[in-house]
Amino acid sequence: MPKLLLNADMGESFGPWVMGCDQEVMPFVDLANVACGFHASDPDTMRRTVRLALDHGVKVGAHPAYPDLVGFGRRSLACSPAEIENLVLYQLGALDALCRAEGGRVAYVKPHGALYNDMMQEPARLEAVIKAVAAYDATLPLMVMATRDPQPAQTLAARHGVTLWFEAFADRAYDAQGYLVSRRLPGAVHHDPAVIVEQARRIALGQALTASDGSLLMLAADTLCVHGDNPESIAAVKAIRQALDQLP
Amino acid sequence: MPKLLLNADMGESFGPWVMGCDQEVMPFVDLANVACGFHASDPDTMRRTVRLALDHGVKVGAHPAYPDLVGFGRRSLACSPAEIENLVLYQLGALDALCRAEGGRVAYVKPHGALYNDMMQEPARLEAVIKAVAAYDATLPLMVMATRDPQPAQTLAARHGVTLWFEAFADRAYDAQGYLVSRRLPGAVHHDPAVIVEQARRIALGQALTASDGSLLMLAADTLCVHGDNPESIAAVKAIRQALDQLP
Amino acid sequence: MPKLLLNADMGESFGPWVMGCDQEVMPFVDLANVACGFHASDPDTMRRTVRLALDHGVKVGAHPAYPDLVGFGRRSLACSPAEIENLVLYQLGALDALCRAEGGRVAYVKPHGALYNDMMQEPARLEAVIKAVAAYDATLPLMVMATRDPQPAQTLAARHGVTLWFEAFADRAYDAQGYLVSRRLPGAVHHDPAVIVEQARRIALGQALTASDGSLLMLAADTLCVHGDNPESIAAVKAIRQALDQLP
Amino acid sequence: MPKLLLNADMGESFGPWVMGCDQEVMPFVDLANVACGFHASDPDTMRRTVRLALDHGVKVGAHPAYPDLVGFGRRSLACSPAEIENLVLYQLGALDALCRAEGGRVAYVKPHGALYNDMMQEPARLEAVIKAVAAYDATLPLMVMATRDPQPAQTLAARHGVTLWFEAFADRAYDAQGYLVSRRLPGAVHHDPAVIVEQARRIALGQALTASDGSLLMLAADTLCVHGDNPESIAAVKAIRQALDQLP
Repeated sequence: MPKLLLNADMGESFGPWVMGCDQEVMPFVDLANVACGFHASDPDTMRRTVRLALDHGVKVGAHPAYPDLVGFGRRSLACSPAEIENLVLYQLGALDALCRAEGGRVAYVKPHGALYNDMMQEPARLEAVIKAVAAYDATLPLMVMATRDPQPAQTLAARHGVTLWFEAFADRAYDAQGYLVSRRLPGAVHHDPAVIVEQARRIALGQALTASDGSLLMLAADTLCVHGDNPESIAAVKAIRQALDQLP
Repeated sequence: MPKLLLNADMGESFGPWVMGCDQEVMPFVDLANVACGFHASDPDTMRRTVRLALDHGVKVGAHPAYPDLVGFGRRSLACSPAEIENLVLYQLGALDALCRAEGGRVAYVKPHGALYNDMMQEPARLEAVIKAVAAYDATLPLMVMATRDPQPAQTLAARHGVTLWFEAFADRAYDAQGYLVSRRLPGAVHHDPAVIVEQARRIALGQALTASDGSLLMLAADTLCVHGDNPESIAAVKAIRQALDQLP
Repeated sequence: MPKLLLNADMGESFGPWVMGCDQEVMPFVDLANVACGFHASDPDTMRRTVRLALDHGVKVGAHPAYPDLVGFGRRSLACSPAEIENLVLYQLGALDALCRAEGGRVAYVKPHGALYNDMMQEPARLEAVIKAVAAYDATLPLMVMATRDPQPAQTLAARHGVTLWFEAFADRAYDAQGYLVSRRLPGAVHHDPAVIVEQARRIALGQALTASDGSLLMLAADTLCVHGDNPESIAAVKAIRQALDQLP
Repeated sequence: MPKLLLNADMGESFGPWVMGCDQEVMPFVDLANVACGFHASDPDTMRRTVRLALDHGVKVGAHPAYPDLVGFGRRSLACSPAEIENLVLYQLGALDALCRAEGGRVAYVKPHGALYNDMMQEPARLEAVIKAVAAYDATLPLMVMATRDPQPAQTLAARHGVTLWFEAFADRAYDAQGYLVSRRLPGAVHHDPAVIVEQARRIALGQALTASDGSLLMLAADTLCVHGDNPESIAAVKAIRQALDQLP
């Protein structure tokens, strides 16, 4: 069974504004989703973040988004598939250039925020992202959300020769279909570190989770999304890292 | 004697706004300086422009600029060398990604507008651009202005392993140092097609021009900058192309 | 019966990019919807456009939009009502300042593009726009689309003390509910000048139109939207103006 | 002798990014320089900041800047005077609209960062700012830096009927001409709270400061610039406030 990789959003500062505790989190993750200037970051922040990741042996992923700095890429924007394909390419290439300047390369792609949500709901948007990855470098994996049925996304990606990495969440409740329970509902977010670590452990071992309706949910995941926004989430990252390292 | 290549700024439309007559000019040039989204263009325009260039066998150059859409990159911005290095890398990579999606690659770099002017006057800014090119791909030539004494720029570029392409202008008067006469002065811009074609011919043949003070000026140029903004300038491009094609 | 006013979008240039034939159209309209920098325009263009309008005795309307220059404000953006209220206020105040510098004032508000469409479909967004207008100056009319049943919008506006101006279109087909037939459907846009002028005349006289299903449609309209993008549309504006001026 | 007012930059957050400790500082200042969206802030942040200021009886000033979010308005941009006049008007009106929505009005204007520095060095830029204020509302004071010789700025402002407010700094060393010693030089910034408070006290009492060359410097100041970025600067604000309140 391959190791469950930890991924975290990084490089979300912008100009003079600082966001996230990248230096504190970087030592504990495997994959850094680096913002590319459309929802956060700028060329200087990108370069600094890439350097930090490479210094820790962490793989750099492009984290492209809708062009919406003030909304942090969290607001859905009615882009056409062609627009999505091209804006993903633009951001992917921009980040790769800053990686090259630091002696590395982009290693995978994970769309951000509303673009991520939209592609999970609309096959046309997912295909636009897949086409961008395939056009740039079909060997780059694309990270998407692990749900109960990965088949439709797999089929679409395979058609373009792109590999998917499925990601799961340790701090969020799932519904029976393998979608995240809306943050507006009670119990959507786990705060108890023990619960979070146990969910991470089960995902890593390929064991079923209990969905919000009590049913069992199997999620085949390649990577786990963690957060480095504040001391609490950083503590969770460390605990998860430690728990996963102790798995056989 | 190598052929004098014609280069023109292309892809300067932005969203719904159209600028330039790219389709009319593309058949007559060798090099397309493609805007990268900071002073003009957007991912869709970039892709369309790249496709047009590749369809005509025209090489695509990155045309990076200060981040100033409303000012079209014509206003100097007090960036640090590190900021310049990173914003050139960002734009270069972004354009290269759209090239890759069309089966091509960026073939050279030519800074735009105020960034171009500033780098010709401040060695620290020129070195920042050179470092960006070297970090991305040291085989990409960097286009700079041909002046009387190319040595300082050559030395700086050589230090980083970067090749320079020197560009000259057929429709502008030069002063004795090989700098363009300011547009605010009379006679700065040639409008007579015969004068423009003759200046192009002399540059192509390595013959001296007459500077604004009457002295002779030798400019060693690899490429000639032409414009495709309006019917008049397009006519000039065609006349120059025809004249150069008839040279031995 | 009050005169049917002609309104047109104006000031949609941006930096060096020109859009629209404002100078040709301004003499023939009553109301200029002036872009405020979020989907088009910039402070210099706004000032120039305001001056042109005032020179022709044309009233200046604020034409606020989602923040989406590259998409020209035509793409829906998932803003909250509070965000919409504040971005309308911001743009309204900005334009009013440029009006004051030219000795005028903003006289009304008409949202642009996707914001206009969204507010016609979601009462929460319409109320957000109404609240912005009310908070700035409740005497400013807000322009909305005339549909078969103006009552819901009227009620919402009245609650905040805001007057609505209803606008109709002479060059578009309507469905039975008084909504515009989608441009994707055949017959959605009228191109025959005689048809356009006749539709304008009927709207001005308060006569019923024939909806796309053959039913009769009464639209109570205060203003007619016209376009100044190209010679054809400008000819239509002149013909409509002439026809309306000849009404009793 | 009129009371020396304390002013501080406020509302410099942007979208999801937080900057400054506005809530901690607001109770201790008289004047809030509120960012207007060009170097920081956005419509929502502006509204929230205005509300906070009005809740504390603090006057709201427009804090316009060059359009340079990523550079936080700290990088000089080669704008023409007409461009400066219009971008100041735009930002001033935008903020005033959000003030009106909260029951207040903009009470003065203080340019930010590089625009502030540039206007202190180039009369053409200063006049552009003055013209913007005069065109919007000539009763609004414009804040400029107090230097040894206020006469040139006074004369320019008087020509347009605008009142100047001169501001001084308690935590910065001055040279003999009344300009701030460059931050790059040793001793440019005072860190000792006692030194800062004493400089504030002397300015408030109209007593001479000791310039960096040992000469005495008289600065006639209406207001003192304070900062609310971090606990240290907030402590300084409180100490200054207390010291000034104890003056006769």
